[in-house]
Amino acid sequence: MEHLVSGVTRACPFLARTPVSALRQMSTAGQSQLFKAATECPVFGRALASMPQAYSNASPSVVSPKKKAPEPATTPIVTDPSSSIPGGFQYDAFFKDLLEKKHKDKSYRYFNNINRLAQLYPMAHTGTGEHVTVWCSNDYLGMSKHPEVMETMKAAIEKYGAGAGGTRNIAGNAQLHLSLESELASLHKKEAALVFSSCFVANDATLSTLASKMPGCVFFSDASNHASMIQGIRNSRAKKHVFKHNNLQALEEQLQMYDLATPKIIAFESVYSMSGNIGHIKEIAALAKKYNAITFLDEVHAVGMYGETGAGVAEYINAMDDIDIITGTLAKAYGVVGGYIAASASLVDMIRSYAPGFIFTTSLPPTVAAGALTAVRHLKKSPVERAGQQLHTRMLKNTLADLGIPVVPNPSHIVPILVGDAETAKSVSDELLHRFKIYVQSINYPTVAVGEERLRVTPTPGHGPELMDGLVGALQTIWTERGLKKEADWAAEGGKAGVGIGQDVDQLVRAEDLKEMVDRAYPYALDTLAGKR
Amino acid sequence: MEHLVSGVTRACPFLARTPVSALRQMSTAGQSQLFKAATECPVFGRALASMPQAYSNASPSVVSPKKKAPEPATTPIVTDPSSSIPGGFQYDAFFKDLLEKKHKDKSYRYFNNINRLAQLYPMAHTGTGEHVTVWCSNDYLGMSKHPEVMETMKAAIEKYGAGAGGTRNIAGNAQLHLSLESELASLHKKEAALVFSSCFVANDATLSTLASKMPGCVFFSDASNHASMIQGIRNSRAKKHVFKHNNLQALEEQLQMYDLATPKIIAFESVYSMSGNIGHIKEIAALAKKYNAITFLDEVHAVGMYGETGAGVAEYINAMDDIDIITGTLAKAYGVVGGYIAASASLVDMIRSYAPGFIFTTSLPPTVAAGALTAVRHLKKSPVERAGQQLHTRMLKNTLADLGIPVVPNPSHIVPILVGDAETAKSVSDELLHRFKIYVQSINYPTVAVGEERLRVTPTPGHGPELMDGLVGALQTIWTERGLKKEADWAAEGGKAGVGIGQDVDQLVRAEDLKEMVDRAYPYALDTLAGKR
Repeated sequence: MEHLVSGVTRACPFLARTPVSALRQMSTAGQSQLFKAATECPVFGRALASMPQAYSNASPSVVSPKKKAPEPATTPIVTDPSSSIPGGFQYDAFFKDLLEKKHKDKSYRYFNNINRLAQLYPMAHTGTGEHVTVWCSNDYLGMSKHPEVMETMKAAIEKYGAGAGGTRNIAGNAQLHLSLESELASLHKKEAALVFSSCFVANDATLSTLASKMPGCVFFSDASNHASMIQGIRNSRAKKHVFKHNNLQALEEQLQMYDLATPKIIAFESVYSMSGNIGHIKEIAALAKKYNAITFLDEVHAVGMYGETGAGVAEYINAMDDIDIITGTLAKAYGVVGGYIAASASLVDMIRSYAPGFIFTTSLPPTVAAGALTAVRHLKKSPVERAGQQLHTRMLKNTLADLGIPVVPNPSHIVPILVGDAETAKSVSDELLHRFKIYVQSINYPTVAVGEERLRVTPTPGHGPELMDGLVGALQTIWTERGLKKEADWAAEGGKAGVGIGQDVDQLVRAEDLKEMVDRAYPYALDTLAGKR
Repeated sequence: MEHLVSGVTRACPFLARTPVSALRQMSTAGQSQLFKAATECPVFGRALASMPQAYSNASPSVVSPKKKAPEPATTPIVTDPSSSIPGGFQYDAFFKDLLEKKHKDKSYRYFNNINRLAQLYPMAHTGTGEHVTVWCSNDYLGMSKHPEVMETMKAAIEKYGAGAGGTRNIAGNAQLHLSLESELASLHKKEAALVFSSCFVANDATLSTLASKMPGCVFFSDASNHASMIQGIRNSRAKKHVFKHNNLQALEEQLQMYDLATPKIIAFESVYSMSGNIGHIKEIAALAKKYNAITFLDEVHAVGMYGETGAGVAEYINAMDDIDIITGTLAKAYGVVGGYIAASASLVDMIRSYAPGFIFTTSLPPTVAAGALTAVRHLKKSPVERAGQQLHTRMLKNTLADLGIPVVPNPSHIVPILVGDAETAKSVSDELLHRFKIYVQSINYPTVAVGEERLRVTPTPGHGPELMDGLVGALQTIWTERGLKKEADWAAEGGKAGVGIGQDVDQLVRAEDLKEMVDRAYPYALDTLAGKR
């Protein structure tokens, strides 16, 4: 399909001359402009006339009208029961209105077709087969293409088949799940761990179950918390206080409102993924102790990435024991899929026994458990990936700072480049992809605040100097050609999202620790190559 | 760990003579009996004395105290902030109380360690390495070990690596996801489809998003609906009416209470997994049309299993076009993992654009999409697996009926054997596993009503006459030795869960259709073997 589109694009004088961004704009204006242009085309006009309805280019999963099902082909049925009922609720029109809102406020998401290639990491092929460099994946350490991870997964398929075949309670609980949970508990120095379909599910299920079980439970939730935590808190229906992002004073003022007998949960993150900010783990844990609250720390963007054994920021700052519940993902630094919690045996067993989102769902395939287990074990020992990731992040941040390209200052591995406008961010992302063969997704509202739209860049150990030159050169060109705001321009306007306010942020990983990590990484890598590990 | 346990069991005179069920019972009695016995043991007593806290055998994911982490070993930290705060909420004690409740009402779940072996399907090895026959998996058609599925998955790992590396919006949207969604849309003859981490997430996210968006939306939900639908409805906070299971009159009475302008969703299933009942699809669709409601049909236990192309019960009875939203799983008959919805383009695009559980989560690994796509395509064409499954189900139902072993009567592929008591059901399951090397998980409250506890048996194409003789023989022995209630005994008591009330239920798949399926299956299988397909 994408291949076909590419062929058509090259063959058509209209499409070949019209930039993708312009086409998108035309297509979102109630279909009128693009639709009008298409119906006037001698080729496409006839095709349109025979279609059951006009498809928007926006719905990637729509059945191609040219593709026939193996059974006697019929056109897809539009099942809108309301369309013929006068005075009835108009379902289809209602859904279309909701979509139109997204188009209007530029928050409508266009999915790029990106197929990351294990053997050419960090390259991917697009829908047309073209190769691009991926600069925005959360496969932070490239573990998804680690030979040992891939081989373990293939072996697990050969031995245990494709799927688990049941819930954890009914035929879907294998040794690989148990071993993975033991490994994760040990990683975080907790008594127990529990694996879920994703960390979205882990956060949602754990928070909602905890608070719906503890009578009168109150939440204290950082304002920048991830959607999964917001959903879990909301679904518990417990009382909640949202405290200003990373603001300890605000948190304490809220905690003071309750006595020690009230069950309380403080929910926050170690690395906030869109800003790269770090949560105040030790300080929040101290407040929790003072006011008898449990701490729920989302280390999703930190596990594998920080600490001696990759257990996260809490390990790096030696605060793991202060935290009651750590949640993490197997889908980012560990490169596979799935999420987990690690906590005391009784808490984990309670969630295991009461959370519908854990109980009533098929467990992860054994192959996924096997791959994740291998990745966790590898990153417990190997400093190579973390060292490479840290070095490349610093290199990129320094280079961009020298050029004045505005990076939201932060102490972590995220490099958020401020654009400040939804349409421009999308259009810069498109230009990077189509002109420079560089894929960086634009991040718009509601993921970030309006006016703080950005390109979120994530360097990995595989993004070496040559690729970095390519990215930096492309950004420079675009910033110059379009006259986009640089650091100094934001400063002149009083700053935005931390850019241009003269903020000097130290990196979380101290220089001496990085040096030690690098010193260890090189001989470790050599030993690995020599087969000594 | 399991291996170690097995060794210890054989070496210890106490454990070797005590049945597992007795050990479990001792261990759940507030730890007193087993703990007492253990502290008196010269070996284990000393081990216990050095442990940070007493572990229950119930928590499979607890870190073994003998296992050391690679880093300087420390004992797991018990982080209960409350334990030293007088008058403070006692978190740990509270969680332990909740668990104690489960032990007391026998709803506490013990996970069996079951490792299903692809090359020896339907065999699995347990934690001790022993081989057992799995008779309760939801890998209904054995697709998890289909060579084509496994090969495609391995090839996808080789090409695209272990994980997707991002959400669908950020670096995690590959052609395989798009192709899978096209295939699923075409399967259900809908305009579009959308894939989620699981069908639990698909149901939860779709129902909660739909109803929270449509102002004043009202749910009409079958009383036997799955936990995922209940959760989605609950999380939407919309008004709901639960109608008596499969009761059209009750549903219509509820629908009549609202005018046509009120948005309404009727949520129900095609195959209810614990009873094997079939929903009244056509009749409910007719009511939906009459009262201007949308229909949401969960075909999780039916996709791949029924209909000419495996699209489910709605396809088999020619009612797919009458349903607005069909949800299905890739984890049961399709043998992998993940879930999906299929519906109109605007509805799917609305969910794609607004559901946090879809947006903010890493997409399924390309290998999972590849495996599922292969399974869906295979089952669109091949009648072989469906024919084998249907034949074995009928064979087993007939044999058990002849012997008077009580099966909850139903028209589908599920064979629920009524036991009627939680402790007995668990103990029969244990005996089947340990004495007869047959794994059938017992299903207790809250999954089924108290007093309706059962063994849920799921024959697959791989469960031929020899294996069936083994199962039937074991059940006969256990029923006789224990004097368990047979069909006639339940009848004498007035019946239970449909057993013993003289109910005569026709199988959903008509005899003539099964004959035609079997007629097609044999030459199809021969062609496949000859490499002609």
